[in-house]
Amino acid sequence: MKRYADLSPTPRTIMTPGPVEADPRVLRAMSHTILGQFDPEFTAIMNETMEMLRELFRTDNRWAYPVDGTSRSGLEAVLAGLIEPGDRLLVPIFGRFGHLLTELSQRLGAEVYTIEKPWGEVFEPQEVIEAIDACRPDLVAIVHGETSTGRVQPLEAIGKACRERGILIAVDAVATLGGVPVETDAWCLDAVVGGAQKCLSVPSGMAPITYNERAEAKLLRRKRVERGLQPPSEPAADGAAASGSAAPAAAPAGLAALPAVGSLSPAALASAAPTLQPPAASELGGSVIRSNYLDLSQLQDYWSPARLNHHTEMTSMLYALREGVRIVLEEGLEERFARHRLHESALVAGLEAMGQRLYGNPACKLAVVACVEIPEGIDGESVRSMLLEQFGIEIASSFGPLKGRIWRIGTMGYSCSKRNVLLLLGALEAVLLRHGAELKAGAAVQAALDIYEGGSV
Amino acid sequence: MKRYADLSPTPRTIMTPGPVEADPRVLRAMSHTILGQFDPEFTAIMNETMEMLRELFRTDNRWAYPVDGTSRSGLEAVLAGLIEPGDRLLVPIFGRFGHLLTELSQRLGAEVYTIEKPWGEVFEPQEVIEAIDACRPDLVAIVHGETSTGRVQPLEAIGKACRERGILIAVDAVATLGGVPVETDAWCLDAVVGGAQKCLSVPSGMAPITYNERAEAKLLRRKRVERGLQPPSEPAADGAAASGSAAPAAAPAGLAALPAVGSLSPAALASAAPTLQPPAASELGGSVIRSNYLDLSQLQDYWSPARLNHHTEMTSMLYALREGVRIVLEEGLEERFARHRLHESALVAGLEAMGQRLYGNPACKLAVVACVEIPEGIDGESVRSMLLEQFGIEIASSFGPLKGRIWRIGTMGYSCSKRNVLLLLGALEAVLLRHGAELKAGAAVQAALDIYEGGSV
Repeated sequence: MKRYADLSPTPRTIMTPGPVEADPRVLRAMSHTILGQFDPEFTAIMNETMEMLRELFRTDNRWAYPVDGTSRSGLEAVLAGLIEPGDRLLVPIFGRFGHLLTELSQRLGAEVYTIEKPWGEVFEPQEVIEAIDACRPDLVAIVHGETSTGRVQPLEAIGKACRERGILIAVDAVATLGGVPVETDAWCLDAVVGGAQKCLSVPSGMAPITYNERAEAKLLRRKRVERGLQPPSEPAADGAAASGSAAPAAAPAGLAALPAVGSLSPAALASAAPTLQPPAASELGGSVIRSNYLDLSQLQDYWSPARLNHHTEMTSMLYALREGVRIVLEEGLEERFARHRLHESALVAGLEAMGQRLYGNPACKLAVVACVEIPEGIDGESVRSMLLEQFGIEIASSFGPLKGRIWRIGTMGYSCSKRNVLLLLGALEAVLLRHGAELKAGAAVQAALDIYEGGSV
Repeated sequence: MKRYADLSPTPRTIMTPGPVEADPRVLRAMSHTILGQFDPEFTAIMNETMEMLRELFRTDNRWAYPVDGTSRSGLEAVLAGLIEPGDRLLVPIFGRFGHLLTELSQRLGAEVYTIEKPWGEVFEPQEVIEAIDACRPDLVAIVHGETSTGRVQPLEAIGKACRERGILIAVDAVATLGGVPVETDAWCLDAVVGGAQKCLSVPSGMAPITYNERAEAKLLRRKRVERGLQPPSEPAADGAAASGSAAPAAAPAGLAALPAVGSLSPAALASAAPTLQPPAASELGGSVIRSNYLDLSQLQDYWSPARLNHHTEMTSMLYALREGVRIVLEEGLEERFARHRLHESALVAGLEAMGQRLYGNPACKLAVVACVEIPEGIDGESVRSMLLEQFGIEIASSFGPLKGRIWRIGTMGYSCSKRNVLLLLGALEAVLLRHGAELKAGAAVQAALDIYEGGSV
């Protein structure tokens, strides 16, 4: 049999828009021993994580918990809960992840209206509000920080306009939560989805979400308790039981006998011969959430004191998320946002001193991503490979129309540090020189140091 | 601001049917530093994990990879890929997780036929085959190891009958993979879903799956490439682009200009004013998979050499899964199955010597779970609490009709050890005595030691 080697990943300096380096404290948290999912110690950790997430999301919402999957599982869970087939949606698109919201919503059966900005721009809030008034959607789904283009969309006026009109708004804050302000309550956002592996510097695997009572009301209208969980005395909540199907009744009957080992007579076995049950017509109303795994009405029961069994909570990932959010709250949200702005300034100053052109409208630049136009005649992928192979530093390319046109440099969470910015600028300069680019050698790092020695932005 | 304490979970002996204790090597693997998702070192780990999973599943299938979520995310992904609305399904039910398969399938729009056995039994293969011939389903979905009742369903004859009839079969092997034989190819199983936190002793968070070309053919008929990923030269694969919608075209057009910083004139901005795009009628065919996150046709592109971006692979969980499967393969599958049988024998011998009654038909007992009838007059939850609080040992209760009627004791993966079995038997005896139960003190551990000193089963 082939032997597989010990895992031994090379340490990397990760300056992409995610996944970024995890704080060593987070990595250590994952090495704690497992607790059972209903162990009181573990449910206490679940409750405490909810409390911490409320602080992180700046909300008084009851519901703030992680969906057990990567960021897009959180997006899909929120959209699956808030979209009933035929609902009208407005998705303002200004990059790849707006297209993703469109895609998710269409698959869920929404009638999706879109407005679109050229990549590199964001919307004037009034443009979105006019589109809302033109199509009167049930839900607006919008990206806050668009990593594909490095832009941030102001949301406060849009959120308030939705609230005034009785329209729900769901926000993709995957790239921004923990790095730039996300004001769930102050901006009147009904549902917000954050990301683990970006500004929280937790490994990919959980999607923290929050939603308010307006969003919950929609979930509760669509709720159904899972078959096989109802206790014997409680009638099944679905049509099959109500219509007298033998299926749910068989289990309690079988149990009532509680046959001892070896006590089953051939007659008893014969009486247990299965009968084919056809589909029950009333089994599923049109409004029931079509996913079970991503059904927020079930997930919130699992996260509630009822602890109604659903999935098995990801033990080690929850340890990681708790530690990651704890680190954020210990640093302080305002202090953390200021740190991200400081290193953004140093990085941008360095890139400009090197003569690199930043992509996109600077008025709406996202603090945690810098998009750099790949210079004429330079092979962008060759530069990225050399940075990774020779210097151990990773930067990103982009998607779709921007593939091969820009690099994306992230300054997120634990990766957002003076050391990383300075090392990256020096290494990028060397790699560009090696690729024959013309630039003013030495200027980039000096410009960044000027920012750091100035001490503030 | 309230300070949150250091994470410090109490070490537990976890004798439930999952989550169980993780091997310390697995916990250490998660503390490795993060690699980027497209870092060649990381994609090599992805490829190697696929290779290891093929060995684990005993298959030559091309596709064997984890779904990024807990076990039921794998079940839902497989069913979402294989069920088109209106497809006819047969679900043989013999416990809670058969009900779950029914629930998942109904939500996906299948016409679900069921047959049911009283809990504590499994089906004669011929009973399932007769039901297949009676309802002629497109797909059979069935549980292999049912943890709610501690039973194992023989699958070989059922798999072969499906193959002969050109019917697909999908199997929930969450509780069995890595603990008892799961022969994907030899039993003609088209799709199999395993679990991480059970016999693999990896923390909950990934669902290893495999499926063959017959299953893949169904996925490929339903495939659609995600919007926002198409390069500029490549027409969008969906109806919107074909029908001339301005939406996908706007992005390349905006990019072609690639405006330099500050170069946007008011005129350029005005020309970029958004136009409301109504829903495209042809946007979504009836057969497109309704989930994006759990769309296997997208996931397999991400796991293929094309590496088409989807989610951000869970870095640390993949490290854990790789290490967990590596440990299984190092131990050897046959040796591992024998170890599970040995500790099962010792546990059962101990329980019987103590005078406890095992629940369910012994002919179909699942080796990795022992279900014990809670003795008359004993408060089952009080026993479980005392075991946990005084001895640090966790056992499980059950669901629905079995709630409060049985305890479930798992012997899975790393938790399946002589030490754990002996400690549990001694502790359970002490707790039962403390609850006033009548039993023959001292006998349980002696009976288990007899098995161990016998050296084999």
